[in-house]
Amino acid sequence: MIENRKTLRYCVIGAGHGGQALAAYLQYLGNSTVLYNRTKIVVDEINALGGIELYGMINAMVKGMVATSDLSLALDSADLILVCIPAHAHQDIATRMAPFLKPHHKIVIHPGRTLGAYMFERYLKEAGLTFQLPIGETDTFALTSRKIRPGLSHVYSRKKQLKIAALSPEFTDAIYNDMRHSFSMLVACTSPVETSLSNIGAIFHPIGALLNIGRIESGEAYLHYKQGISPTIARFLEKLDAERIELGEFFGFQLHTAYQWLDDVYGSQGNNLFDALQNTRQYDEIFSPNEITTRYVYEDIPTGIVPMVHLAKLAQTKHSYLQLTLDLANALYGIDFNDIGRWDVEDFFNRYRPKG
Amino acid sequence: MIENRKTLRYCVIGAGHGGQALAAYLQYLGNSTVLYNRTKIVVDEINALGGIELYGMINAMVKGMVATSDLSLALDSADLILVCIPAHAHQDIATRMAPFLKPHHKIVIHPGRTLGAYMFERYLKEAGLTFQLPIGETDTFALTSRKIRPGLSHVYSRKKQLKIAALSPEFTDAIYNDMRHSFSMLVACTSPVETSLSNIGAIFHPIGALLNIGRIESGEAYLHYKQGISPTIARFLEKLDAERIELGEFFGFQLHTAYQWLDDVYGSQGNNLFDALQNTRQYDEIFSPNEITTRYVYEDIPTGIVPMVHLAKLAQTKHSYLQLTLDLANALYGIDFNDIGRWDVEDFFNRYRPKG
Repeated sequence: MIENRKTLRYCVIGAGHGGQALAAYLQYLGNSTVLYNRTKIVVDEINALGGIELYGMINAMVKGMVATSDLSLALDSADLILVCIPAHAHQDIATRMAPFLKPHHKIVIHPGRTLGAYMFERYLKEAGLTFQLPIGETDTFALTSRKIRPGLSHVYSRKKQLKIAALSPEFTDAIYNDMRHSFSMLVACTSPVETSLSNIGAIFHPIGALLNIGRIESGEAYLHYKQGISPTIARFLEKLDAERIELGEFFGFQLHTAYQWLDDVYGSQGNNLFDALQNTRQYDEIFSPNEITTRYVYEDIPTGIVPMVHLAKLAQTKHSYLQLTLDLANALYGIDFNDIGRWDVEDFFNRYRPKG
Repeated sequence: MIENRKTLRYCVIGAGHGGQALAAYLQYLGNSTVLYNRTKIVVDEINALGGIELYGMINAMVKGMVATSDLSLALDSADLILVCIPAHAHQDIATRMAPFLKPHHKIVIHPGRTLGAYMFERYLKEAGLTFQLPIGETDTFALTSRKIRPGLSHVYSRKKQLKIAALSPEFTDAIYNDMRHSFSMLVACTSPVETSLSNIGAIFHPIGALLNIGRIESGEAYLHYKQGISPTIARFLEKLDAERIELGEFFGFQLHTAYQWLDDVYGSQGNNLFDALQNTRQYDEIFSPNEITTRYVYEDIPTGIVPMVHLAKLAQTKHSYLQLTLDLANALYGIDFNDIGRWDVEDFFNRYRPKG
């Protein structure tokens, strides 16, 4: 007997590289999907085309989806809200979402980077939300995709594994059960500590950019993983990653190392992290950032390195490589990335640290 | 009336890029010169040629000089000893020189980097030298030269300014008066603090290498000053340099900034350090290090950044950029550069700090 379930109604927030492809993908799989984007001209272009065209892993002209820049309308027609926008815009969207949220809504920060769900709940409370909603986060993004223009997306691949956790464990199952029909690679975690510390971008992105800053700034295009992460930089990343793993151990999780992650996700191996990166063919065409304002620094430092540094300080685990990464970014950019980062983590720490 | 002075007898220690050209240059100017080199085969090649050929700024086949690998003989025939070898070899040469030194000798570490004369005196004492000698240091090397092979050197230019100081102020004049006949660009300083903190290589070399480590290690040849020191890296260097200047102020010296130094030495100007470097045609052909074991790291960190960090700690002046440079080098190379560096600076600090 086939289980009778109600149609899932998704709202995807943000029509960027991820959001546009994901909304079309969910609609393509039979879900009722709304794509919200703040900029009306983007929405109008999609609606004028009558939908979104996907090519690559999926080749389809996906129709029947609603695209809108009316947030009230977008949320009204949805049960599960996937927030797919850069982290620096989370506070703004949370503030604007708060008045329209209903108790039946579930929210997933996709991806959460580190502490995405936690910060989003705080933003919602600060914006006046009085009731508790299931809020979760994933450790990475479900698809690898690029937006060519409004209405046209290239989908390269699906991740083989996608971790998910809600802030309250009792909500994880509900979100997981809703989403797993469309996200077969989904793995439910017991705590957002695990999704937050599985943010592998914080390991692979910032140092690879910072230690090639002269190269980026002289306008040279090089391959981020293949030419940017040299043996010496890869050894630095192994030590940085070891601090992430040690922090995970403090919270009771045996996280996979960056080296193991390459095997999990891409089947790449080697004698060490450098070799494994060199053996990852999926990185063959990933080029370097072409501006020092890259999200490898401006997104991954405040939403990855900053919260890891502050959690490690509270946990009293080693964090000299994490701290050095933050100090170097601060010195090079002449700002304090804490100011735009997730540094205020004490409540999170106290809520999820091992008790007794 | 022309002053009647005794012929100056120089001993140049080391037949590398600097020493070989300098020995020939001093002999060419009429001084009696001995060139010492530890490796006998190098000495034999020079003697077989009957001298050293210079080309470039000076074109001459210089004869009549003694080249030897007999240290006793080399020192016996000299009054003023110029130590022109990499700093990591200073302890070895001091230990071997000590038994042959006489009270009439004067020693100049050329260049001293930071605290070269101070460390050399300690090495001599540790090696059993019981009497005090005039020991001085210069802030940079007198010539810009490259050794093509034993017996053949390319001399590009002479520095426009060369600072010199002895550990004891009363000896500075004696050394200065001896040397100024052959080194017309010589400027006597009141204290080795000034020569030590005028080590501009500590500003221009290590960070330029460390923040291009991925580039160096992927075998790319780029121009160290022109393509390696990008605007962001140049701004970092300005802050690093400001800590050197502040340290100088603590000791009572108004040192020139790296930006001013470019104008002093090369006549280069611009809106900022980046511009001035771009406008320095003398750097047009200075390529990047081709190995991560470059002296830009292995010499300039232990003999420049390390002593500046430790002096700044004692002086309680700002040193976050100096410290970050050291921390980054330690993390990337997986060693503690203090271990091979000039960290034990408390006696120096107490001897030269402003009193009262």
